[in-house]
Amino acid sequence: MPATPFSCSFLTLQPRFNSYVNPIFRSLTFQLSSSPLPFNANFSSVRLHSSLSRAAETDSPTGGRSGALTPGPAVAGEVQKIDVNPPKGTRDFPPEDMRLRNWLFNHFKEVSRLYGFEEVDYPVLESEALFTRKAGEEIKDQLYCFEDRGNRRVALRPELTPSLARLVIQKGKSVSLPIKWFTVGQCWRYERMTRGRRREHYQWNMDIIGVPGVMAEAELIASIVTLFKRIGITESDVGFKVSSRKVLQEVLNCYSVPENLFGKVCVIIDKIEKIPADEIKKELKAVGLSQEAVQELLQVLSVKSLTELEERLGSSGEAVADLKQLFSLAEKIGYSKWLQFDASVVRGLAYYTGIVFELLKEKGLLPELNLQIDDIVCALDEDLQGCAAMVANILREKGQIVELVLESKPLKWVFKRAARLNAERLVLVGNSEWQRGVVGVKILSTAEQYEVKLDDLK
Amino acid sequence: MPATPFSCSFLTLQPRFNSYVNPIFRSLTFQLSSSPLPFNANFSSVRLHSSLSRAAETDSPTGGRSGALTPGPAVAGEVQKIDVNPPKGTRDFPPEDMRLRNWLFNHFKEVSRLYGFEEVDYPVLESEALFTRKAGEEIKDQLYCFEDRGNRRVALRPELTPSLARLVIQKGKSVSLPIKWFTVGQCWRYERMTRGRRREHYQWNMDIIGVPGVMAEAELIASIVTLFKRIGITESDVGFKVSSRKVLQEVLNCYSVPENLFGKVCVIIDKIEKIPADEIKKELKAVGLSQEAVQELLQVLSVKSLTELEERLGSSGEAVADLKQLFSLAEKIGYSKWLQFDASVVRGLAYYTGIVFELLKEKGLLPELNLQIDDIVCALDEDLQGCAAMVANILREKGQIVELVLESKPLKWVFKRAARLNAERLVLVGNSEWQRGVVGVKILSTAEQYEVKLDDLK
Repeated sequence: MPATPFSCSFLTLQPRFNSYVNPIFRSLTFQLSSSPLPFNANFSSVRLHSSLSRAAETDSPTGGRSGALTPGPAVAGEVQKIDVNPPKGTRDFPPEDMRLRNWLFNHFKEVSRLYGFEEVDYPVLESEALFTRKAGEEIKDQLYCFEDRGNRRVALRPELTPSLARLVIQKGKSVSLPIKWFTVGQCWRYERMTRGRRREHYQWNMDIIGVPGVMAEAELIASIVTLFKRIGITESDVGFKVSSRKVLQEVLNCYSVPENLFGKVCVIIDKIEKIPADEIKKELKAVGLSQEAVQELLQVLSVKSLTELEERLGSSGEAVADLKQLFSLAEKIGYSKWLQFDASVVRGLAYYTGIVFELLKEKGLLPELNLQIDDIVCALDEDLQGCAAMVANILREKGQIVELVLESKPLKWVFKRAARLNAERLVLVGNSEWQRGVVGVKILSTAEQYEVKLDDLK
Repeated sequence: MPATPFSCSFLTLQPRFNSYVNPIFRSLTFQLSSSPLPFNANFSSVRLHSSLSRAAETDSPTGGRSGALTPGPAVAGEVQKIDVNPPKGTRDFPPEDMRLRNWLFNHFKEVSRLYGFEEVDYPVLESEALFTRKAGEEIKDQLYCFEDRGNRRVALRPELTPSLARLVIQKGKSVSLPIKWFTVGQCWRYERMTRGRRREHYQWNMDIIGVPGVMAEAELIASIVTLFKRIGITESDVGFKVSSRKVLQEVLNCYSVPENLFGKVCVIIDKIEKIPADEIKKELKAVGLSQEAVQELLQVLSVKSLTELEERLGSSGEAVADLKQLFSLAEKIGYSKWLQFDASVVRGLAYYTGIVFELLKEKGLLPELNLQIDDIVCALDEDLQGCAAMVANILREKGQIVELVLESKPLKWVFKRAARLNAERLVLVGNSEWQRGVVGVKILSTAEQYEVKLDDLK
């Protein structure tokens, strides 16, 4: 402990005007995936054998020792070796990891509620068509999709936004605007696995629908900053790259590029850090942009300050006005140090920075979350187990978290268990005490010991 | 509101000795699936057309009005109609339903913690082999299974117990016994849909591993009784049918039936309420039981009182001793009125009673869970929006749940929104007030109004 570093890459933020659905739609996605557990390296050698036997595959980064379920006599006729590791790219959450996951998700949920967002959820299994309708998305080739037993094409959701859009359209006018919804949900993508990236991850989505101005963006960034501050991350650790799609639109308008090319240009621009500049130029020309348009576009996109952008685009356009307003709001709310203008940020749906939450582990920010029990209740005699159960339930009714010793065990074992569970008190049910209507209580940190009447237990 | 009745069938409880894995293993499963929403009936007529066009399928019980995503100009080239309903058998959780789900799940989690259980989770996507190794289970034909892009056979989990067994074996001796784990997780089964039964559901599982005596069962039943009491369900609403697999084992031993037939006999006995007695007899003979063994077995299984069972089996066997101890513990802990002996309860893994949580709706026990906001903050002038955002964040830092009005809106709109969100206070940021370092506060229930200095806001 702390055993599980949560890794997290976060969305580069940009106002997404007219982007996904038509009720103006703004969202912030926070993508979490767990980074490898320490025994990752142990299995690189085993990986060589994984093609020989699928049942013996042990190259999962969560893998523990290999083994097989040992069925009891009831199923002895059908013994079959089963891999004890979860499928490649997925993971278990044993108690120590689950405590960390709950810690982080509770922060997500509390922050969302502070900002007046309502929690929603969607099916994990959606229609494949919901995700494949968008052309050019890498996600399409990473879908976990199949035909169900009723011949429907379905897919495990790779992201949450299409489901949100579906539900909002379904609800139609029955919900009042603005809609402010959040979700913490698991998603699946069949990706190449790297450090901190598996084939399942959790996303924290916050969405505002129905607000045309940039106040919505200002509000979303404010919420993320609130989260960061709560868990000890500062502006020297992470920052937000901010731009507006309107920058790109205005340049395209200047060169009379038809509006229906906008989507295609976005997909190309999104690759700007991944493929050589010449390739980008070639692709832009291929969709129909002139030499001058390509030149101007790439120059504008390299701009890193709002002042310079204003010099290039003039101050009359919406792009500059929106961005100036957003930076001025950030100043007022008090998080301007977290923001940085970067014109090359263009794409709304799948553009993430490389900044990850492994920070939390590197900076020692992961909390120590030990199991914490209030009382451990133990009968000193097997015949008193029912009485001990009664005592446990009296305490639980008072709100105490109680571990009841379920077998006759030596006191040495009970003390060891109490220590492992960080119990505060040991409650002993003995024969002579029970006759007198009392139980023995021992404060484990101080070894202080006394008797308490059943009626006074709390 | 309350719009979503949660329906729930609960496991008939029985000590499962030597049942699943060999470290003695006891579990309690609570299966939840949501019952149909009110507009169920609306779509029965549309169902006729569902085979014509998959994209237009609207026979989902969650279905709302039909429609299609309207892509913005950015993706205008790729317009494609999308069904706005979730896939058949799945459902959305809009805010009003999510509040109820959270209410119920929080009770599950709080009760589990009171009893000293630790939360765990497993992958939603498991190896298919984990679920198909058990022969004779109906579940096998209901699996959502497929081959992933790496040619692994995988399946959406239909239940949680096999994953638990897998993780416990993987952990081996690194975890100290007894293990007390719980999970609230979603599962998928491709079943025929009926009222209250879809193709996805949630299960609350509590498992104790490593305790040989029936104290473990007593503890698990106590926890469920605690849950029922918390949400207002009484022993006149539901009860636990209790038996022990040892009853069956002892009868089989009497007639020298080989131990490896036990599993097969369980599968047959499990169908006792579903198919005619003659069929059951035929099947039992087919696996190799004698006429006398079948006769005696069916007579013992019809026994409904512990005294009668003792008369038939004698008092020396473990079955009677265990059951007597369990009923005596129930007496001490105080929930014996909830228990009922029924020898025909035989199968541990998939035997559910018909009792459902729709009770909650029928009895009017579902709580009214409205959205509840502390403050709604509004700028009286567009130029003051940044200041309003600042005020909102001051309040949030004090722990207030704050809705910030993100656009310039007439006060009439703001009051309507405040009412919909059940806001307690309206905080108005006006020009002259701001100059004086104050804001206006209005208590919405009393219409009381006053000014507060920024520094005194809380």
